[in-house]
Amino acid sequence: MALALQRENSPWRVSLWTRRETSLPGIAQTLPGCRATCHLGDAVEGADLVVVCTSPRAIEESGPVLAKLISSSTVVTDAGSVKERIVASMERTLGGRFIGAHPMAGSEQSGLAAARADLFEGAPCLITPTENSDPSAMATVRQFWEEVGSRVSVMSPAQHDLAIARISHLPHAMASLLVRAALRDSPETRALAGSGFRDATRIALGPESLWREIFAGNRENLIAAIATFQEEMTRFKKLLMEHDEEAIEAFLREARLLREGAP
Amino acid sequence: MALALQRENSPWRVSLWTRRETSLPGIAQTLPGCRATCHLGDAVEGADLVVVCTSPRAIEESGPVLAKLISSSTVVTDAGSVKERIVASMERTLGGRFIGAHPMAGSEQSGLAAARADLFEGAPCLITPTENSDPSAMATVRQFWEEVGSRVSVMSPAQHDLAIARISHLPHAMASLLVRAALRDSPETRALAGSGFRDATRIALGPESLWREIFAGNRENLIAAIATFQEEMTRFKKLLMEHDEEAIEAFLREARLLREGAP
Repeated sequence: MALALQRENSPWRVSLWTRRETSLPGIAQTLPGCRATCHLGDAVEGADLVVVCTSPRAIEESGPVLAKLISSSTVVTDAGSVKERIVASMERTLGGRFIGAHPMAGSEQSGLAAARADLFEGAPCLITPTENSDPSAMATVRQFWEEVGSRVSVMSPAQHDLAIARISHLPHAMASLLVRAALRDSPETRALAGSGFRDATRIALGPESLWREIFAGNRENLIAAIATFQEEMTRFKKLLMEHDEEAIEAFLREARLLREGAP
Repeated sequence: MALALQRENSPWRVSLWTRRETSLPGIAQTLPGCRATCHLGDAVEGADLVVVCTSPRAIEESGPVLAKLISSSTVVTDAGSVKERIVASMERTLGGRFIGAHPMAGSEQSGLAAARADLFEGAPCLITPTENSDPSAMATVRQFWEEVGSRVSVMSPAQHDLAIARISHLPHAMASLLVRAALRDSPETRALAGSGFRDATRIALGPESLWREIFAGNRENLIAAIATFQEEMTRFKKLLMEHDEEAIEAFLREARLLREGAP
């Protein structure tokens, strides 16, 4: 994000907060134009906008801390993958100046070495204001996410969590299940994997300490999405057991057309 | 395959058979060094090696036709994704000079425009001889698949079908199920897809007329692999419903380590 703001030569001046002192030299080298510190108060002092980019639970818990450090005119947004719980919690302490956001970008990698200035370029970013949101805070947050390159969509936190359970959290869980089901009884089969398996399971390489929090934060919607998957799976298995090849072809065709975006 | 053989400047002279006359001009342009014809007899006349690259059922049915056209010294191999049925059928008419093979390469694309000379480079190719196989036919077939760039592994047709059900056929079926489960109730959610969803479901774009045959040809193993997936899924859903975050993290970690290849 900081790389994208530097590259764009934008009006923003960037201060970075990091937990570990040991991260500071790397940040100074990669982002010479940014200020970096381990002291949160220094990082957010005088800020127009604070972007909270931690795990979902740490975002939820950041409200009371930030409220003491920032001025009443500071706008706050985040980059968390769940929104209902985060928005409810942040609005309790920060009110209408918190506007939740979820940039749909990133990879299974993490850390400074994986940073890319074009990470957000063309990626969807979902912004989730509520009836409590301050309109000028909303304008600031939208401008910010557009400036790093993302395509902004606006929806409610509840709409976000339902849609993202289906298009992001379900695929992540299924990728992990697929690895387990494919390799559980014969890990050595890994050596035969082609690009299909590799692509289908790439996201299972993501950090489990983050994904446990994401799944917990969108539990009900994820359970419902898994139930839908189970229905489809039961139907597909039945077609296989009945040798119904015509129906299997139609089943796969419907999936292909849904994936292609054709009606 | 023909592109790879041309590029390598290998000793092979390549004749191509195609079903449609309309394909011939494109082949002549892309592969000026190859002979191409719609007459199977002309294509295989005097051949040292015939490579059957059709759908699994058409491979199974090609034995009696080829037996009438080729000489007794001609070796035959194939590129089909299932092996037990194909090998049994081909050995009935061709005997030990048929050696089954499965190059684990390709993409969701098809047709001449998708051809790449490096498609097989470094990709696994499983060769499945039996007790009936002629050793010199085996040597010819191994040399051929190595020459197009693949890494050859040798196993029995039954071992092949079990392993490939897990590492290729299950992932394909799960990708189609994932598209259906994610988009069934809200196709418009597609617009929010990030690279995770795109990669996880890319193989669902493959041609369903081919995949119905592959699934039918490896039905029992695929049903068993789906049952394993269902077990893993039931366990994961139970952990979610019990709010057992520690166990979810361990479950995801096991998947990540299996995927990474670390013990």
